[in-house]
Amino acid sequence: MHFTPERMPPLTAIRLGIDTRQEPVIYLRADSPVCRSEGFSAMSRVLVSTDQQHAIATLNIVTGELLQTGQIGFSESAWQRLHLSIGDSVWLSHPKPVQSLSHVRAKVYGHQLDEMAFQSIINDIVDGRYADVHVAAFVTACGDNHLNDDEITALTHAMIKAGSVINWKTPMVIDKHCVGGLPGNRTTPIVVSILASCGLIMPKTSSRAITSPAGTADTMETLTNVSLSLDEMRHVVKQEGACLAWGGAMRLSPADDLLIQVERALDIDSEGQLIASVLSKKLAAGATHVLIDIPVGPTAKVRTAEAAELLANSFRSVAKKLGLAIDILLTDGSQPVGRGIGPALEARDILAVLKNQETAPADLKDRACLVAGAMLEMINQCPAGKGHLKAKEVLESGLAWEKFTAICQAQGGLFKPPVAPYRYSMVCHTPGIVQHIDNRQLSQVAKLAGAPADPEAGLEIFVKLGQRVEANDILLTIHAANAGELNYAVDFLEDHHTLITIAQGED
Amino acid sequence: MHFTPERMPPLTAIRLGIDTRQEPVIYLRADSPVCRSEGFSAMSRVLVSTDQQHAIATLNIVTGELLQTGQIGFSESAWQRLHLSIGDSVWLSHPKPVQSLSHVRAKVYGHQLDEMAFQSIINDIVDGRYADVHVAAFVTACGDNHLNDDEITALTHAMIKAGSVINWKTPMVIDKHCVGGLPGNRTTPIVVSILASCGLIMPKTSSRAITSPAGTADTMETLTNVSLSLDEMRHVVKQEGACLAWGGAMRLSPADDLLIQVERALDIDSEGQLIASVLSKKLAAGATHVLIDIPVGPTAKVRTAEAAELLANSFRSVAKKLGLAIDILLTDGSQPVGRGIGPALEARDILAVLKNQETAPADLKDRACLVAGAMLEMINQCPAGKGHLKAKEVLESGLAWEKFTAICQAQGGLFKPPVAPYRYSMVCHTPGIVQHIDNRQLSQVAKLAGAPADPEAGLEIFVKLGQRVEANDILLTIHAANAGELNYAVDFLEDHHTLITIAQGED
Repeated sequence: MHFTPERMPPLTAIRLGIDTRQEPVIYLRADSPVCRSEGFSAMSRVLVSTDQQHAIATLNIVTGELLQTGQIGFSESAWQRLHLSIGDSVWLSHPKPVQSLSHVRAKVYGHQLDEMAFQSIINDIVDGRYADVHVAAFVTACGDNHLNDDEITALTHAMIKAGSVINWKTPMVIDKHCVGGLPGNRTTPIVVSILASCGLIMPKTSSRAITSPAGTADTMETLTNVSLSLDEMRHVVKQEGACLAWGGAMRLSPADDLLIQVERALDIDSEGQLIASVLSKKLAAGATHVLIDIPVGPTAKVRTAEAAELLANSFRSVAKKLGLAIDILLTDGSQPVGRGIGPALEARDILAVLKNQETAPADLKDRACLVAGAMLEMINQCPAGKGHLKAKEVLESGLAWEKFTAICQAQGGLFKPPVAPYRYSMVCHTPGIVQHIDNRQLSQVAKLAGAPADPEAGLEIFVKLGQRVEANDILLTIHAANAGELNYAVDFLEDHHTLITIAQGED
Repeated sequence: MHFTPERMPPLTAIRLGIDTRQEPVIYLRADSPVCRSEGFSAMSRVLVSTDQQHAIATLNIVTGELLQTGQIGFSESAWQRLHLSIGDSVWLSHPKPVQSLSHVRAKVYGHQLDEMAFQSIINDIVDGRYADVHVAAFVTACGDNHLNDDEITALTHAMIKAGSVINWKTPMVIDKHCVGGLPGNRTTPIVVSILASCGLIMPKTSSRAITSPAGTADTMETLTNVSLSLDEMRHVVKQEGACLAWGGAMRLSPADDLLIQVERALDIDSEGQLIASVLSKKLAAGATHVLIDIPVGPTAKVRTAEAAELLANSFRSVAKKLGLAIDILLTDGSQPVGRGIGPALEARDILAVLKNQETAPADLKDRACLVAGAMLEMINQCPAGKGHLKAKEVLESGLAWEKFTAICQAQGGLFKPPVAPYRYSMVCHTPGIVQHIDNRQLSQVAKLAGAPADPEAGLEIFVKLGQRVEANDILLTIHAANAGELNYAVDFLEDHHTLITIAQGED
């Protein structure tokens, strides 16, 4: 019935080689007829179509000589999202208004959202219809404890449905997750190796760091290939009973990967999104039995026993609604675990524990056995109270190390972690007793030093709470890949004297 | 004390001519030594320094032949922010962590913020230390009614301090603001003309549209120059007692201009930010007496009398804390005002009213006199209940039109508003009585048609509530600058049959 314009002649696709990460950007001359005919201006959200594909991108207007008339430039992510080849024909038009943003607004206004609402939000995010500011508004609106258990369950369902789900066709598939906030607490590779050598199925997918100096995937990447496809992962698990892979390549809960990008920039904790993120990944990976490790300490992510109990109750309630067997382990979160903080430095600790070396950090070994033991008890593989000991036996027998090397070989080989060329050591000035260690500040130092983007960067801490230190003892050593970041971390160190508190006085 | 790297050799500045709006972006080759030495990667936030200036920008990594070794590319906003010339030397480094983000997080967690906290957030936003996602988190955290009156007062103070404040050195400076949500309700130019011709001082600065099809500044821009500097504005006000300028060029509450960019993308209402935005602009512009017009209706911004009273109370309470005399006028917000919706179409209505033309929309004239009259009464320029009539007399005498032309001449001349080439008329199919008009959907149609970016775009509505319409009567006409946008607006019209509801039945 209404006025229908001629379809505009197509634009010719040019790959500009500009890396804008996950945000697809297109570049168009200011004098392009399509800008006039469609009313586009700089930063407009634009629907980009080829004969086969379409995607939404952000428009940057080019006033210089970057492009010729009739050309359209693409950032790398826009180019890849549309599977383009040079010279392809491209059309631009207005995207439809994003209806699900009304649900984000409803959440800001304090309303409860149902599963349909979460599903439409998550689908739009996965389909690239949200700009980063929209994702930021959603993350913020769900921040703190703004989601109740029904909403967390609905969000988890929605996130699972937006990606692939693995069916292992076996009655028991185990998994674990640590809520984090404790630098160096890298028990997963040890736990997986112990349990897989007990014959259990543990297809472990891990994430990269969100706000910490290393995620398990970052650490494992210094030791082996972690970017497995779904088929490669199936193959490794079939052969070894377990894997230690990065979850991001498999589109298990792809919404979570996109949310995490923005959560990292905002650094806003959200209990609901934490639970949905963890449980959606576990259920999509086919887990039936999951242990959640919650370290509790004044500078850990969870600061008090009361907060831990509230979080544990939400985890239990949502897992029950989702039909997942779950157990919660509250652990000591008062100080870092092991010596290394940062991908390669943590990898070194893990190797030392698995190889039963004398220099291996005893606390990391102990925690890994505690977690593995709790999982053995949870699935009735040993009597209550005997799990810890059984895990220790398996570890000390060398079977766990054998299993670890077999898993790495199956994933593509066991590598040596990289070493950082730049270092700085902080020494003790006056003798005393180590009274307090600030986990958050330590993580900050390791991140400023370049972790996790530089896998060799981070720090080693050489003291534990209650330990006696003398003048000129080295308290910690920063590792960096370059001088700029080393300096940046040292600057922070000099401004933050509560990082490690030494109480002076009698021995 | 610590390791200090050599300062890297500078990069050479290249203007790439890429328009990224307010977000400064820089472009660097992937093989640049500074990427390695400082650990930068795509989308890093980077401190860009010249010998004179520095600014934070977002880094895009270039893998193609866009730049030569040693060059650094700049988007238009980054180039302007640093006042660069081609070939200037530029250094890159890490920006300091943005401390005020901890206050944004505290707000997400439901804590009350004090003035220091708001001041540090606002200063960081004005200095460009927030990426858009951070601003989005702040806007979302303050959304709905999450700020109490003390916080709104603190935020208003912080926003005023971050910009210029005008001192008119006269005891009474009047101003008005309409909370909006009512398309076509463009009373301001008429009110200003009436009151200035009564000898009052009304240096009116207006904003561009946030989520509506036109702001007063957009409308006035089709009639005269509104981009006045502070000095130019002083000159106009000294000569005519009033002006009708765009506030954005004067850095009155510059934080507000930046917040509005993101609020527009998110479309999230925030009572606190609305009040802070309005009152910071008024106080910075030197106002002593302000009238707030709150239209109330089922599809206006404020939907119920109760909501209007709550908002009015907050306005009164915050204004009192800030030492500003304020009066609130609740008005009928059940349907659009005048005929035109969109900058140029609204300008035409204003001209008709000011010139006392027979075709002038009576409702717009009546509302303008109501508002001007309330202001005359508020400042005791006439007895209670007589303001409306006095305003009408001034308008009908032709004095207001004389004053309006004088103001426009002083600002740079009185122009003829532009005319749209593309149109589409929606006709009535079956006779009946107009029962309901949806303000929000009407605004949406006008925006899809291209308003306010295309000043000539928008719509004319030819019916009022309760009016009898016959088959083939034109209900509304869409105006567009191009075929794409016309089509887009017509598509929406065909999908939304509740835009104008006609009740069938006896006359």
